Amino acid sequence: MDLGLKGKKAIVSGASKGLGKAAAMSLAREGVDVTILSRTKDSIEAAAAEIADATGVNAKGVAGDFNSAEDRARLLAACPEPDILVNNPGVRQTPTPYDRIDEAEWLQWLNDHFLSSILMIQAVAPGMAERKFGRIVNMSVSFIKFPQSGFAHTHAARLALSGAVAAMSRDLIGNNVTINTVCPGLFDTDALHTNLHQHAERGNTTYEAIVEDRKQGCPAGRFADPSECGDLIAYICSAQAGFMSAQNIINDGGVYQGLF
Amino acid sequence: MDLGLKGKKAIVSGASKGLGKAAAMSLAREGVDVTILSRTKDSIEAAAAEIADATGVNAKGVAGDFNSAEDRARLLAACPEPDILVNNPGVRQTPTPYDRIDEAEWLQWLNDHFLSSILMIQAVAPGMAERKFGRIVNMSVSFIKFPQSGFAHTHAARLALSGAVAAMSRDLIGNNVTINTVCPGLFDTDALHTNLHQHAERGNTTYEAIVEDRKQGCPAGRFADPSECGDLIAYICSAQAGFMSAQNIINDGGVYQGLF
Amino acid sequence: MDLGLKGKKAIVSGASKGLGKAAAMSLAREGVDVTILSRTKDSIEAAAAEIADATGVNAKGVAGDFNSAEDRARLLAACPEPDILVNNPGVRQTPTPYDRIDEAEWLQWLNDHFLSSILMIQAVAPGMAERKFGRIVNMSVSFIKFPQSGFAHTHAARLALSGAVAAMSRDLIGNNVTINTVCPGLFDTDALHTNLHQHAERGNTTYEAIVEDRKQGCPAGRFADPSECGDLIAYICSAQAGFMSAQNIINDGGVYQGLF
Amino acid sequence: MDLGLKGKKAIVSGASKGLGKAAAMSLAREGVDVTILSRTKDSIEAAAAEIADATGVNAKGVAGDFNSAEDRARLLAACPEPDILVNNPGVRQTPTPYDRIDEAEWLQWLNDHFLSSILMIQAVAPGMAERKFGRIVNMSVSFIKFPQSGFAHTHAARLALSGAVAAMSRDLIGNNVTINTVCPGLFDTDALHTNLHQHAERGNTTYEAIVEDRKQGCPAGRFADPSECGDLIAYICSAQAGFMSAQNIINDGGVYQGLF
Repeated sequence: MDLGLKGKKAIVSGASKGLGKAAAMSLAREGVDVTILSRTKDSIEAAAAEIADATGVNAKGVAGDFNSAEDRARLLAACPEPDILVNNPGVRQTPTPYDRIDEAEWLQWLNDHFLSSILMIQAVAPGMAERKFGRIVNMSVSFIKFPQSGFAHTHAARLALSGAVAAMSRDLIGNNVTINTVCPGLFDTDALHTNLHQHAERGNTTYEAIVEDRKQGCPAGRFADPSECGDLIAYICSAQAGFMSAQNIINDGGVYQGLF
Repeated sequence: MDLGLKGKKAIVSGASKGLGKAAAMSLAREGVDVTILSRTKDSIEAAAAEIADATGVNAKGVAGDFNSAEDRARLLAACPEPDILVNNPGVRQTPTPYDRIDEAEWLQWLNDHFLSSILMIQAVAPGMAERKFGRIVNMSVSFIKFPQSGFAHTHAARLALSGAVAAMSRDLIGNNVTINTVCPGLFDTDALHTNLHQHAERGNTTYEAIVEDRKQGCPAGRFADPSECGDLIAYICSAQAGFMSAQNIINDGGVYQGLF
Repeated sequence: MDLGLKGKKAIVSGASKGLGKAAAMSLAREGVDVTILSRTKDSIEAAAAEIADATGVNAKGVAGDFNSAEDRARLLAACPEPDILVNNPGVRQTPTPYDRIDEAEWLQWLNDHFLSSILMIQAVAPGMAERKFGRIVNMSVSFIKFPQSGFAHTHAARLALSGAVAAMSRDLIGNNVTINTVCPGLFDTDALHTNLHQHAERGNTTYEAIVEDRKQGCPAGRFADPSECGDLIAYICSAQAGFMSAQNIINDGGVYQGLF
Repeated sequence: MDLGLKGKKAIVSGASKGLGKAAAMSLAREGVDVTILSRTKDSIEAAAAEIADATGVNAKGVAGDFNSAEDRARLLAACPEPDILVNNPGVRQTPTPYDRIDEAEWLQWLNDHFLSSILMIQAVAPGMAERKFGRIVNMSVSFIKFPQSGFAHTHAARLALSGAVAAMSRDLIGNNVTINTVCPGLFDTDALHTNLHQHAERGNTTYEAIVEDRKQGCPAGRFADPSECGDLIAYICSAQAGFMSAQNIINDGGVYQGLF
């Protein structure tokens, strides 16, 4: 399928590995030049090189912290007029009991999982609207539709983002700019492995037991490959997806049971 | 993007024109052989010929009524082991005041917009599960998420389908069979034109005025091209979309305002 | 709290015991005369006598099958101008694998959990609108928001009802007629006990084990008392609840995890 | 209906008038002693006196800003062991175009409509759990289910709250502590009048025209009386509502069209 993206320019954060890198790779395969961000210089440059090698597009790695205003400014300077923005703030998910989250922790999560993304959106959306093309995708988690005990801080921040996006999406779609949210479940990434290892340590059980438990709790019976998320994002960014905005699309192997 | 569908076989109903034909065409472009259904022999055969010409796949037209058990049996006989099923019962939408819908009308709508589709799903899903690949897409309408006055009969039937699908989806995804629902808004099809003409007649206004009103009420400011729905369906049917099931995906240019 | 219902008249079906009887009792405590329906003459008359004794209202028992048009006509003849209608079609919930539900079973469930209720609503709503007061409550189940494997037939029918109700509700609220849906989870009723006994038999386990399992799966840690559902229904029927319509209110001790 | 609240103690903020005062009055009518907060000493003391006079309960007015940590501490000091907490941060709703909301404005809204409420909840919930009774109600707006253009800041903050509440609710309901959210639409309050006057000024139209427009857009055809929200809150706080938590209950006369 021709996604109509050849020659477009994308910014993807959290892209040295995992779902962010998969999104960048899927976009690059469609001929999109990518500017990708991640904390460590070596790993983001290696990812950029790998993407460029595999696809032939221009791929530029920027070392920086998505949650730093300065680093986001450098990221935008490296790609001042993006057609596509994929906000991937990372999936570090440490549970905190509801009564232990203090004001500083609330604010940090709001900064990391809401403000960083929304400020990026505000920075690029007006230009996209002027140029009559824009595709913005926020990487969230399936749990925003069924918030889990111990994760009030992360769900608060992620739902703030979905709420803000819904409110502004109808100001943008008339200019062919969409903002959608991808809500992945269990994908076979380093981030998931790390989370499950930590979970195993907290729970006095083994990593293998947790993996087994998670797979059994997933009707699909497996962890998905990151490319299954990357390609979904590429589709959402396609020229032909311009009539769909403000959707929160669950991609979790059937774990979420809600009708809507 | 390679959707991994080359050589697969699809059944698509309501496919002589509009969204059904667009779905068949998008699938055919990916190398899927299509068996398509519609009432009139000439028009379904013409559509099949057009699809075969444009894409080189095998395209077979079956003349029949999706709401007739006999005709559905003939459709299945023409493609006994489909990998893909797109249920498109058509979009005739005549409003009836809530207090005028009698038992016969309720039952007819349940037959046409629920039973026909669910019986097709039940007929093909077990085989798909055995063969470890299946993609089922129901064509619904955006309004299932915000039912409209005057359309209790159609929303009842369509929500019955989304409910049944949600209930059964988790029995199938473990065998790489997904069932999703596409919920289009205003697409530039003959069906829409007919609906708006009828609406104009009922409302003592002009077709042009209704068209203008509908476009103004749509944040995207336009009626979408059928291919924008066809390609979405093709993506949902892709090999890489196997982790996503039981989703009701709105594609309506921003008309629906709900968060979820 | 004065619910402003003194002297109103209500029809409640499925009311010889369980949630239906609880609803009738809660309404009667507010001074509402109740006409209640259930299959067995002795038990429905005993329930009526108990309600009248406890509250002093007029309580009339009608023996009949909610799913029979003739019996519903007799029910309406016994209370031709109700101010309140509580549709409780009963909670028999036998699972059927998705591929075993035949057309007759789909139709039976649609009849029992959709048509019977919607035809009652159509019969009484216009009169309520004319008299400028009406409160209609459908007794559903929490699972309509998260349909469960094995229950495609029941969820289809119940969602058809919620969909039809949503579509028609905005035609009625301007005349102070509301239609809401109560979605209970695990309540301590004979119906639940029967379901769990059957479940135990099917699952080669004990009733006690199933009860324990269900309570552990319910964050509230208990089965609720039927009066907790009856009082909710009475509140929804109150004079002061006239601004709330088409809501599907979950009352399930925290089992449903969805945000909305 | 006896709500089982006699002798309980409630904290209600934003309570000198409007929906907050209505909630306090409805609770007081059930025999709940209320500690109420609002910015101006005179008006909050007048409201307390009015409630005490009308109901005979103890009603204490605390002058303070709900968004000040210090003032919230004073409020808690005035009622250290509340059984009921109604968070009403007020409904000032000034629209800001999506691209004009700067970091400071995002943070202020998050502070005012999220942090203040969640910190109050965290302060009182553990004690409620220990005492095996607690009812927490957040006053939100119907729009959290369908975010509106121009209000990204407020919807972000309010959805953060609903998300955090959903995540923590299942840790509390086992100890008979519930947290629910009331989502009112158009209620006949000073706050609404002020909003509509400002709207009229911004829109070059008259207050009367805006009022008419809003009533026509509301299927109920009217602005509701604050007591219709106050009584809903009182019901949600009742002893018999302990099985219902984490619900976002729309009470808006039919404006919101979503099924769920």
